Amino acid sequence: MASFKDLTKEEVNSIIERSWKAFEAYRKYPLQKRAAFMRAIAAELEKGAKEVLPVAMKETHLPEPRLQTEFTRTLFQLNSYAEACEQGSWLEARIDTAMPDRNPSKPDIRKTMIPLGPVAVFGASNFPFAYSTAGGDTACALAAGCPVVVKAHPAHAETSEWVANTVWKAAKQLDIPEGIFGHIHGAGFETGKALVTHPHIKAVGFTGSYAGGKALFDWANQRKDPIPVFAEMGSINPVYLLPQKLREAAAETAKMYAASITLSMGQFCTNPGLIIGIESAELDRFISVLGDEIKQVAPAHMLHTGIAKAFAANRAKALMQEQVTTVAVSVTPAKEEQGIPTIASASAKTFLNNPVLHQEVFGPYSLVIQCKNMEEMLQVAMDMEGQITSTLMATVNDMLRYEALVDIVKQSCGRMIVNGVPTGVEVCLGMQHGGPFPATTDARFTSVGADGIKRFARPISLQNWPDELLPDELKNNNPLMIWRTVNNKLTQEPL
Amino acid sequence: MASFKDLTKEEVNSIIERSWKAFEAYRKYPLQKRAAFMRAIAAELEKGAKEVLPVAMKETHLPEPRLQTEFTRTLFQLNSYAEACEQGSWLEARIDTAMPDRNPSKPDIRKTMIPLGPVAVFGASNFPFAYSTAGGDTACALAAGCPVVVKAHPAHAETSEWVANTVWKAAKQLDIPEGIFGHIHGAGFETGKALVTHPHIKAVGFTGSYAGGKALFDWANQRKDPIPVFAEMGSINPVYLLPQKLREAAAETAKMYAASITLSMGQFCTNPGLIIGIESAELDRFISVLGDEIKQVAPAHMLHTGIAKAFAANRAKALMQEQVTTVAVSVTPAKEEQGIPTIASASAKTFLNNPVLHQEVFGPYSLVIQCKNMEEMLQVAMDMEGQITSTLMATVNDMLRYEALVDIVKQSCGRMIVNGVPTGVEVCLGMQHGGPFPATTDARFTSVGADGIKRFARPISLQNWPDELLPDELKNNNPLMIWRTVNNKLTQEPL
Repeated sequence: MASFKDLTKEEVNSIIERSWKAFEAYRKYPLQKRAAFMRAIAAELEKGAKEVLPVAMKETHLPEPRLQTEFTRTLFQLNSYAEACEQGSWLEARIDTAMPDRNPSKPDIRKTMIPLGPVAVFGASNFPFAYSTAGGDTACALAAGCPVVVKAHPAHAETSEWVANTVWKAAKQLDIPEGIFGHIHGAGFETGKALVTHPHIKAVGFTGSYAGGKALFDWANQRKDPIPVFAEMGSINPVYLLPQKLREAAAETAKMYAASITLSMGQFCTNPGLIIGIESAELDRFISVLGDEIKQVAPAHMLHTGIAKAFAANRAKALMQEQVTTVAVSVTPAKEEQGIPTIASASAKTFLNNPVLHQEVFGPYSLVIQCKNMEEMLQVAMDMEGQITSTLMATVNDMLRYEALVDIVKQSCGRMIVNGVPTGVEVCLGMQHGGPFPATTDARFTSVGADGIKRFARPISLQNWPDELLPDELKNNNPLMIWRTVNNKLTQEPL
Repeated sequence: MASFKDLTKEEVNSIIERSWKAFEAYRKYPLQKRAAFMRAIAAELEKGAKEVLPVAMKETHLPEPRLQTEFTRTLFQLNSYAEACEQGSWLEARIDTAMPDRNPSKPDIRKTMIPLGPVAVFGASNFPFAYSTAGGDTACALAAGCPVVVKAHPAHAETSEWVANTVWKAAKQLDIPEGIFGHIHGAGFETGKALVTHPHIKAVGFTGSYAGGKALFDWANQRKDPIPVFAEMGSINPVYLLPQKLREAAAETAKMYAASITLSMGQFCTNPGLIIGIESAELDRFISVLGDEIKQVAPAHMLHTGIAKAFAANRAKALMQEQVTTVAVSVTPAKEEQGIPTIASASAKTFLNNPVLHQEVFGPYSLVIQCKNMEEMLQVAMDMEGQITSTLMATVNDMLRYEALVDIVKQSCGRMIVNGVPTGVEVCLGMQHGGPFPATTDARFTSVGADGIKRFARPISLQNWPDELLPDELKNNNPLMIWRTVNNKLTQEPL
C-alpha cells in the first residue's frame, strides 16, 4: 500500500490559506459554474474508474460490485447536487417588496443564501468514494459555494490521493483556482484538530465514530468563533417487530434481516444492530430462522485492521455481558481480520439496565431484545438514544393499535421505515440522513440528498438594493427562472 | 415594582416535567390547532392592552408610543407565524415516489418536519413584548410544535407574569394542557443553567448580551446530548459611507443617522454603533452635522439600572481610549440612569489596533471611523466581527466601483442595507435577523420572520409508510393543499 507523509502544521496552514484565497473567487461564481465544476469532477472520475477501483479494492477489501455501486452513487451525487445547485430552490429566495405608503414605510427586503467559507471534510472508512474525498459532503460544500479541505482517511489514502488529483484536473479545465480543493494526509488527531481550529475553516463535515465526531464538535465549539459541525457518528438502528406482522411474516422478516445485517459485513451506519420483539412462539421462530440464516453467511475481510479489531473487541464485550445469550455464529471458520456474522439475544430488562448493550458493534452483529409485553417495548423505545434510522415491521392494524409506540419511535430517529430494512440510503430530496444526538451533532440537517447543501450556507437579507446589483436569484426579472416566495406566495414569475 | 420569588431547582424541574408531558399531546395536534392557539394568545393579549401597557411603561421606562408599536408587532408576529404554521411551507414537504422496477428497487420516501421538544426562551430586556414572554421565539416554538419554558426577564417580571397568565388563558380556551407554557422567575445565572442543562429541554432561544448568550451556548454544548442554541448577542452594526454618496448627501445622511442612533435611547440590537468614512471635506461635514443633531437630543431614562450603569461604564471606557475624540454630547444635562447621546471619532489605525473599540456600547452612542483611503476602509471591513446588520450609504456607481468592499461586507453580516438605517426590523419572510458569530450563535437561522420556526424543528423521513398513517402534509391527496416537492418538482397537486 502506498504511504503518504503526514503534513506538518505549516503545510496544513498553507493549504488552508490557499483555500481562503480561492473562496474569494469561488463564492462569486454563478451557480452554473459551480454546477459545471461538479459535473466535470464526475466526468473525470468516470473516465478513471478502471484505474481507481482496483486501488480501492486493495485498500478496503470491499468487493468490486459493492465498490462499483458506490462509485456510481458518487457520480450520481455530484451530478444530481449540481442540478439542485443550478435549480436554486436551496437558496430559499424570498422577496418582500416595498410598501412606501405604509406608516412607517416598509423597505424592499430580499433573502438568499451565501456560502459559509472553507469546509473541512473528514471521510468515512467504509465509503472510500460516496462519503469521502469527492463524496456527499464535498459535493454539498462545492454547491453551496465553499472550498473544501479533505483530510484523507488513512485507510484509503491512495484512493483519496487519486480522487484529489481528479478534482484538480476538473478545476484546471474550468480555470478554477487549485485552492478550491485541499487534500491533507495525517493519521493522528492533531491534523484534524489543526484543521477544525483554524480561523479560516468555517464548517465541518464528518462521517465516522462517536469519539472522532465528538472531538471535532468540541474543538469547533471551543473556538473563539464556534463553527457548525455536521458529524454523523453511528447508530444501532433499532427494528421493532410488531405482534400481528410477526405472526404473519416471522420467517420472511428473519431472512430479510439476515441479509441486511451481513450486507457488506455489516459495515454500514444504517446496519440494524438491535431487533426488538415481544416474547411469543413467533418471536422464537423469528430468532431461530434468523440464526439459521446467519450461520450460513461466511465471514469476510473487514475494511481495515482497526475496524476488524474493534469489531472483535466490541462483539466479545457484548457477548460477555451478563444475561446475554449468543444465538448464532457463522459456521464457517473465520480468518484473521474477518468479520464473524453473529446474533445475540437478551431480555428487555437486561437491555434497559446495561448501557454497554446500547453501544454500536460496527460489523455483522445484531442483538435481539425480548420484551415481556408491549409496555416493555414502549420502555425500550423511550430509553432509546438518537438514531439515524428506526424501523417498524408492522401491519396497518399494528400501527393503529400501538399508536403510542409509533409516536415514541419517531422522536428518536431521522428516518423511520415501515416493513423494510434500514440499509440502502437513497440519494433523493426525501432522504433525511441524520438524527438526534448521538447519531449526529445537528439533527436539523441531512448529509444525504441535495438538502445537505444547506449545511454549508447561511441566509442573508439584502434591503433596499438597486435591482442591477442584486444576485441573479433576487433580481426583479428572475433571470434564473427559479421558484421564489414573493410577498408570501411561491412563484416563478418575474416581478 | 412587584417582586417575584426565585423558583427553587425543584420547582423549575417540576415545570419542565409538565412541559415534557404537554409535549406528548401538543406535538400531535394538527397545524390548525397550533395556529388557533397562537391566534387566541394574540386575541387575549389585545384585550388586555390597556391593563399591561402601563405595567410595561413603569418597568422599562419606555414611552407609550414605543411600547404600543412593540405590542402591535407582537400580535402581528403571533398572527402571521400562525398563518405560516398552517400554510406549511416551513415543513419543506418532499415526496419521492417508489420505483419498484428499478434495480435495486427504490422505496417511497417522504420528508417533513417534527418539533424538537420543550424550548427554553430567555427574553430581552429591551423588548418586553416582541422578544420576550410571548414574543418571536415563543411564537416560533409553538408553531413548530414545541412547548415553551420562559425565564422571565427580571427587569420586566410583572409584565412577563401578566403575559404568562394570558397565554394560560388562551390554552384553557382550547383545552391545551397548561404545561404547554412554563414561566420561571429567577434572577441569577443558576436558574438559566438549570433550564438549559435539563435533559427535557431540547433547544434554546435567547436575546441579550454576549456574556449571557455565550454561557447558555457553552452549557448546551457540554450536555450529554448537546442541544441547539439560537442566541442573538448584539452587534455594532457598521455603516460604510461611500465617497460619491457622501459627496451627494452628507448632511441628509447625518440627520438620518442622528435619529437612528438615538431612537429608543439606542437600545436596539440594530443600533448603528460604528460609522466608517474616508477623510474628506464631506466626511468633516457629515461629522459636524451629526454632532450638531446629537447635541439637540435630550437624554432619557434607560431600560433599567443595569443597562444604564453598563452604558455609562462602556461609554466612559470607549471615550477614554487613546486617540479617541469626543465629537458631541447632548447639551441637555442628564439625570441619573439616563442615556447621554454621544458621538466619538477615531482613525482607522486606532480602531484596527484597539479591540475595545470593536465592542458594543449599548445605548445612544456611535463611533465614527476616519479612514485615510479605500484600502483602509477595506481593512476595517475585513477586520469586522460577525454582525446582525451592515449598511452601505452608496450610489450605484460607488457599489460598482468598490465591488470588493461590497463583497467583503457581505461576509460578516446577516442583513445588508443600502441607503437606509439598520434600526427597524420588518417581520417578514425576507428578513434575516441573525449573523455570523458573535452576532448570533448560529448564522444559519433567523429569529425574526416565519423562517424562525425552523430553528425548533427537524426533518424526518418516513419510508414506505401506508398512506393513511402519514401526517396530512405527506398524504397522497394533499389534504392541506400545501406546496410540496414531488419527485424534484414543486407542486400543490395531489399525487
